[in-house]
Amino acid sequence: MSAAIDPLALARALIHCPSITPRDEGAQAVLAEALEAIGFKVWRHVWGEAPDGPVHNLFARIGSSGPHFAFAGHTDVVPVGNRDGWSVEPFAAEVRNGQLVGRGAADMKGAIAAFVAAAAENIPAQGSLSFIITGDEEGPATFGTKPLLDWMEATSNVPDHCLVGEPTSRQRLGDMVKIGRRGSVNVWIRVQGAQGHVAYPHMADNPVRHLVNILHALQARELDTGNAWFDPSNLEITDMTVGNPATNVIPAQAEARLNIRFNDEHTGAELVQWIEKVAARETAGASVEAKISGEAFLTEPGDFSALLADAIRAETGAETEFSTSGGTSDARFIRRLCPVVEFGLPGQSMHKTDEHVAVDDLHTLTRIYGRILRTYFA
Amino acid sequence: MSAAIDPLALARALIHCPSITPRDEGAQAVLAEALEAIGFKVWRHVWGEAPDGPVHNLFARIGSSGPHFAFAGHTDVVPVGNRDGWSVEPFAAEVRNGQLVGRGAADMKGAIAAFVAAAAENIPAQGSLSFIITGDEEGPATFGTKPLLDWMEATSNVPDHCLVGEPTSRQRLGDMVKIGRRGSVNVWIRVQGAQGHVAYPHMADNPVRHLVNILHALQARELDTGNAWFDPSNLEITDMTVGNPATNVIPAQAEARLNIRFNDEHTGAELVQWIEKVAARETAGASVEAKISGEAFLTEPGDFSALLADAIRAETGAETEFSTSGGTSDARFIRRLCPVVEFGLPGQSMHKTDEHVAVDDLHTLTRIYGRILRTYFA
Repeated sequence: MSAAIDPLALARALIHCPSITPRDEGAQAVLAEALEAIGFKVWRHVWGEAPDGPVHNLFARIGSSGPHFAFAGHTDVVPVGNRDGWSVEPFAAEVRNGQLVGRGAADMKGAIAAFVAAAAENIPAQGSLSFIITGDEEGPATFGTKPLLDWMEATSNVPDHCLVGEPTSRQRLGDMVKIGRRGSVNVWIRVQGAQGHVAYPHMADNPVRHLVNILHALQARELDTGNAWFDPSNLEITDMTVGNPATNVIPAQAEARLNIRFNDEHTGAELVQWIEKVAARETAGASVEAKISGEAFLTEPGDFSALLADAIRAETGAETEFSTSGGTSDARFIRRLCPVVEFGLPGQSMHKTDEHVAVDDLHTLTRIYGRILRTYFA
Repeated sequence: MSAAIDPLALARALIHCPSITPRDEGAQAVLAEALEAIGFKVWRHVWGEAPDGPVHNLFARIGSSGPHFAFAGHTDVVPVGNRDGWSVEPFAAEVRNGQLVGRGAADMKGAIAAFVAAAAENIPAQGSLSFIITGDEEGPATFGTKPLLDWMEATSNVPDHCLVGEPTSRQRLGDMVKIGRRGSVNVWIRVQGAQGHVAYPHMADNPVRHLVNILHALQARELDTGNAWFDPSNLEITDMTVGNPATNVIPAQAEARLNIRFNDEHTGAELVQWIEKVAARETAGASVEAKISGEAFLTEPGDFSALLADAIRAETGAETEFSTSGGTSDARFIRRLCPVVEFGLPGQSMHKTDEHVAVDDLHTLTRIYGRILRTYFA
């Protein structure tokens, strides 16, 4: 029905575009051309302004009836990092010893190419298949998947199930599928005190004293002990600043930043309220600012995750672990519309120098994705 | 026996020399000339090298028998600070509305001038009178009073009693005499952890967590409740630094600085050992550095302090409070050689813009100092 697509060739063409967030550098044009060639209708959107934009986004669909299966991913990549740590040019996409080496090979241009190749061979006779692709997953994500989902809702393009192609595998392809993610919130605590001389503490109000008490109370609490699908929630203080050069001066201000990765026993808002309460109890001089990056979510193991596990086992023999560990992804946004799971290449080299993926894994992933589509649309 | 000296004229001549630590700018030559004119033998020493030196020091003595009374002080001054905050040129030593205004007027060129004027009128018939003057009391004090005391010991110039002319008065001249000082120690605590991603805390070791626990334990301890002559010892955290810009990264290092002002129920070494123990109990990654600025000391109230109180009462009617409050002074060094008390001008404007002292107070202080000398040598 449509021409075969080589996942390696498409992955290389995508990596050749140095699409460091939020730049596109032609990556989505490469993808659009491949999708149109196999019959997809493609919509492209450029949203936002500097510094967080403009961001290129792409939605593509084939078919108009249900069921509607979507693949989600991103064409943007993280910066090269230490150039001297690379043994090849980061965007040359060279193949060395059976490995495709380049920025984005694992995270996640390889998976996009594999899914396009799988789709080319498995266009559903009935039902719809779509691609939800953003150019800002690695950055602030303000002008990426979120507004793209809004547009999909407004244009009746809401899928029934979504597979995100993030590099979820660990040691070998297929050993892990993500069925949820912890939430994440960053919190800034600032304490205003009253400056003074250390010899006259009664005439000052040391903000560091208050901040240490607040932080100690926060990190002393066991948030939970985890549950069947989630690790325990965890708080880490990531920064503290006073900036007082004088050894004999009690400073006027102190601040700290912390991050909580939380499971589905909490919401971001509830955690922020708790921090505000602890801070206010210590001093009226405390102020709390919070940014919730995403709430925790879980796609309970069932038919959808079993479909993935079966396809992985059939193609690789691997038994998949269902996990909610690790960082965040755009699945945190997509969960609002439909059940979402994540499965892609081994991610050990992601964000590092000499990011790479085995060419064999690219082909195997294409076969796994193809099997998923055949079963789903059967 | 010797010519009368006008304390105002001498104070102005001293202030005209912009002797910001460690510079001298002729200040000690002015003083030496005045002392030689009234019969003192003067020794001048320049010790040390940049950046903490060279420092000018002066010792002067009249008489060779006992008892030996010494006056101690410093000709250096702190920087001008915010020049726009001054209503006059800081080193012009102008008199406005009965106030001598200038850097060093209160701390402590005024008191030096007053004591020289008092000495001129009260050269002891029997016994010795001396001046212990440094050009670095406001700075690191490495090349100041300490080596000058060593030189005095080596040359048999150890006094029996010493009066330091620091600005100890508060609201009005004579309301406070210092009979001791708290000790002071600055401590730097550094914690080395292991960097990592906040989503994988088990693969990292957050140094901020340890540092907060250490600081919390330190500031939770009541060091003591004070005693008859001392306020309670007190610990203040004065700085904290992590310097981690990334919200999703557990940092590798964290550090804090604190200061303890402690009374005679502690020694600096004992306090540092306590901090080292608390830090080591929390993590092997902690290291502690300490600098003891001075130990606590007390010149128990007795004949010497009563002599001051009586002279103050006779000249001003004021009842003096004996205190050990406030910062440190070179009395911390002199206590090693003999009983030492401190008494000088009102210090409210010291280290500030428009530092000043009432001309009347200069003359009254001269009379008080004169009365002290007459009683001492009677």
